[in-house]
Amino acid sequence: MKFWKLHGIGNDFIAIDQRFNNNDLKYYSDLAKKVCHRRFSVGADGLLIVKKSDKADIKMLYYNSDGSIASMCGNGLRCFVKFVYDNNIVDKNNFYVETLDGIKNIKINLKNNKIETIKVNMGNGKFSCEDIPVISKKPIFIKEILNFDEKKFEISSILMGVPHTVIFIDEMSLCEIKKYGSLIEKHNIFPEGTNVNFVKIQDKNNIFVDTWERGCGYTLGCGTGMTASAIISNYLGKTDKNVNVTSQGGSVKIDIEEDFVYMTGPSIKICEGLLEV
Amino acid sequence: MKFWKLHGIGNDFIAIDQRFNNNDLKYYSDLAKKVCHRRFSVGADGLLIVKKSDKADIKMLYYNSDGSIASMCGNGLRCFVKFVYDNNIVDKNNFYVETLDGIKNIKINLKNNKIETIKVNMGNGKFSCEDIPVISKKPIFIKEILNFDEKKFEISSILMGVPHTVIFIDEMSLCEIKKYGSLIEKHNIFPEGTNVNFVKIQDKNNIFVDTWERGCGYTLGCGTGMTASAIISNYLGKTDKNVNVTSQGGSVKIDIEEDFVYMTGPSIKICEGLLEV
Repeated sequence: MKFWKLHGIGNDFIAIDQRFNNNDLKYYSDLAKKVCHRRFSVGADGLLIVKKSDKADIKMLYYNSDGSIASMCGNGLRCFVKFVYDNNIVDKNNFYVETLDGIKNIKINLKNNKIETIKVNMGNGKFSCEDIPVISKKPIFIKEILNFDEKKFEISSILMGVPHTVIFIDEMSLCEIKKYGSLIEKHNIFPEGTNVNFVKIQDKNNIFVDTWERGCGYTLGCGTGMTASAIISNYLGKTDKNVNVTSQGGSVKIDIEEDFVYMTGPSIKICEGLLEV
Repeated sequence: MKFWKLHGIGNDFIAIDQRFNNNDLKYYSDLAKKVCHRRFSVGADGLLIVKKSDKADIKMLYYNSDGSIASMCGNGLRCFVKFVYDNNIVDKNNFYVETLDGIKNIKINLKNNKIETIKVNMGNGKFSCEDIPVISKKPIFIKEILNFDEKKFEISSILMGVPHTVIFIDEMSLCEIKKYGSLIEKHNIFPEGTNVNFVKIQDKNNIFVDTWERGCGYTLGCGTGMTASAIISNYLGKTDKNVNVTSQGGSVKIDIEEDFVYMTGPSIKICEGLLEV
């Protein structure tokens, strides 16, 4: 089976073209678990599957490495776009991708005829406690206090496809990020858990984010987490509507526009090959 | 750059043919660090490099994922053999591979003209405390007691290219294996640290091994650890000279023969491809 491996700021994916194959969802779920295994196979955070669409230019199916289907993945969508563009599956710079989270508009920025960055529509964050979900008597969950025996955090939460909590910090060790990330993820006010973003404000247009991912732990970069961090930072007046967001894996630009929030960032091809399946 | 990815019982490697390239050791060390990264590149435990040999049929250079060069790697050598045989770089079933740990004789077992298993010479274990090294007044380190506050272990150590310690257990949780593996690895009687193998004797010809690797932590399978476990088990009369050794990643056969100790096991091709470097 032909494949590419790509990454978007350290989030890595295997991409395959299945426009002309009729496999069922169980097959793709099993395939994702198999090929994403980091020692018995190629290894990746997720599997991107190209399908024909009757509503948009192309359709993306996305599976996590554990075989679960996910409606959207920001870093994954950029890698999907690079795969379909560089393989001439879609030959436009602006196009539409059908995802389980709706149709996303895409803009490719070229430099010397090669993809430099890709701008993807990340939708909008939802602030209501019911949507996130978080157990609270208030309608939204902004600047709320969470106490641990030895530490107190001011936290704000938002639904960005998945639940995200943002905490502004000055300095914090990786060890503490892991400790409190894990504790907050599983705190009983979050019935479905939450991703946790530790954000350092550098200036009005630059922030640094460390994300603790629900179910995954500390990651090099999380597209929805970087987007949620930019939205909350702007909501609280700490940053402008256009901000560079950096994580351990690299940087993206988040633009809060009138209709939606957009993320612009790179996608890197690692290799292409033939998988033994 | 053309590559294969292969694994031997869950120990995974990237293999490249560099017979006709004159790159220096620094180049390969940097390449290993780069291509073994599990998110920014293909990802593997190590990089296998094929070189011409003037002493044997072929030469293997092996680098760990951290860029350090290693003299030998049992599971890696089997994957190296599959790569050179399946690519017709060496067209014999019995041949010799030059490694930094000396020349190793190899025997390929075919089934329907395809490699089923590969038998590799693992050398011999060294029992002397000075060789291992372990700080002790005794000449060898067998059935010695190591005390922790709440737990007591009877341990035996051997140098199998790298220091290995073997502990026989009935039942132990993964959590305990990680806890005590880490404590024993860094115990001050081992000036260079030690790998730690927790061994369950099933019968005279079957054992199960969980290995805590020095510098790596818990792994799915460790070739030298499985070999060391079979040697110590046999030395203490618990098993015969021919034993099947199983770890989480799969099984190998260890044969203690008159000259050397041999390991026979599978090597699986995962994929082949072109790396962007």
